[in-house]
Amino acid sequence: MAERAMGELLRVVMVLMLLMLAAETEAMSSRRGNKRGKEESSRSGEGDSMSFCLSWRLAVEANNVVAWPTVPQQCSQYVETYMMNGQYERDLDLIVEEILGYVNQTLLPPDPIDAWILDVDDTCLSNIFYYKSKNYGCDPYDPSAFRKWAMTGRCPAISSVLRLFSILVDRGFKVFLLTGRDEESLGEVTKNNLQNQGFVGYERLILRSAAYRGKSAVKYKSDVRKQLEEEGYRIWGNVGDQWSDIKGDYLGNRTFKLPNPMYFVP
Amino acid sequence: MAERAMGELLRVVMVLMLLMLAAETEAMSSRRGNKRGKEESSRSGEGDSMSFCLSWRLAVEANNVVAWPTVPQQCSQYVETYMMNGQYERDLDLIVEEILGYVNQTLLPPDPIDAWILDVDDTCLSNIFYYKSKNYGCDPYDPSAFRKWAMTGRCPAISSVLRLFSILVDRGFKVFLLTGRDEESLGEVTKNNLQNQGFVGYERLILRSAAYRGKSAVKYKSDVRKQLEEEGYRIWGNVGDQWSDIKGDYLGNRTFKLPNPMYFVP
Repeated sequence: MAERAMGELLRVVMVLMLLMLAAETEAMSSRRGNKRGKEESSRSGEGDSMSFCLSWRLAVEANNVVAWPTVPQQCSQYVETYMMNGQYERDLDLIVEEILGYVNQTLLPPDPIDAWILDVDDTCLSNIFYYKSKNYGCDPYDPSAFRKWAMTGRCPAISSVLRLFSILVDRGFKVFLLTGRDEESLGEVTKNNLQNQGFVGYERLILRSAAYRGKSAVKYKSDVRKQLEEEGYRIWGNVGDQWSDIKGDYLGNRTFKLPNPMYFVP
Repeated sequence: MAERAMGELLRVVMVLMLLMLAAETEAMSSRRGNKRGKEESSRSGEGDSMSFCLSWRLAVEANNVVAWPTVPQQCSQYVETYMMNGQYERDLDLIVEEILGYVNQTLLPPDPIDAWILDVDDTCLSNIFYYKSKNYGCDPYDPSAFRKWAMTGRCPAISSVLRLFSILVDRGFKVFLLTGRDEESLGEVTKNNLQNQGFVGYERLILRSAAYRGKSAVKYKSDVRKQLEEEGYRIWGNVGDQWSDIKGDYLGNRTFKLPNPMYFVP
């Protein structure tokens, strides 16, 4: 009996040790110190794969890897874990705290021309449940399925950004929501979605007009920001999950890149 | 006896479980899903602290957190592990692979005006051993100690960047090494250091002249790049570990941000 119990315990110990190996991380997996061919060798083990996916995500967020069509297949599980198990929210929270620190430094109270620009998709509203059905970005872009999702008008608010939004509005900033969504087909539903998620009190929701269909987000958003500056607005901050939200012209005084490891908008 | 052995085993199991808790990572630590006050709560446990440090580093690398004077104290161990246990090199390798992919796309062979710009400190040459003595960036900036370190002329090459450098030179690109190091006091030793680490064949090493002492790196480096374009060079790529290397004017066709969680240069 005692021997069987000890056998059981030994098995538990073995399982725990295997779990520890599987849970290898930046801190744990990197001891191997291999120097080249990471992408290839990363297929050889879970630790290597996570290590590659960490590198890949960092390179994406720092705008080194650009125009990537889909998440690398080997990073599907990694991106799911990142998005669903809390780290994504923590990353957002830290950036929003940084933005609020900057807001508190700048000016109080704002003039009527003092403005902020926020992107919509995966900045104010989350598409995480849609991307869950697309293997967290490993499946190719599917514009008609995305439209169907957006048409439901049920994209949930990203809570830390909703908090930022509310503070900006309460302080008296003019908040412009600037989205690449098509004005004609998604204008009404987007307005309702924002409303039902608590985005109330913004100055203007600006959607992509027919003239900008097929144009890059950098061109479209730069033109809109130029127009706002010509109207007399002073852009204090510009927040988006894509580099195309915060590149180009008339960017404002400071830009903030929210994480998004699921897709790239040119 | 059997009971004592089982007791031992139980202790082993307990210790293993505690170790697993301590090894919590992005993947593991994030289940708690707490939403606010991360920086504060992160002091409550190692998993939370790593989770905070991951968020902090991502925000630094995406240029959301700016003008930070030192690494947060709680991230000293995290930054050490990141820098010393392989992940830093893997992150560099992935970016260098991305750069080489871009190099291979662009043009072949280059014209005599086709240029690249590389920063020096923590781009070509590593200061990791110096920062090791400064608690990996948790200690305040110490200009005289840094000068003493640089004066040794023994900063090691960053191997993946040396590889990139050699390929660029071999392909026929004009490579400009552009550094914020003071020309008068560090010019000679930097030249020798680059040489003894294998950086041979570059077009020009450009150091900070007396006129730019105390000026921001963005201003100084923008002016130099402008000068190079006026000389007729076409900047294909611009590589640095600081955002101040790749912000400002005349940035070139593409910029690349190498990781550096140890310090911030304005």
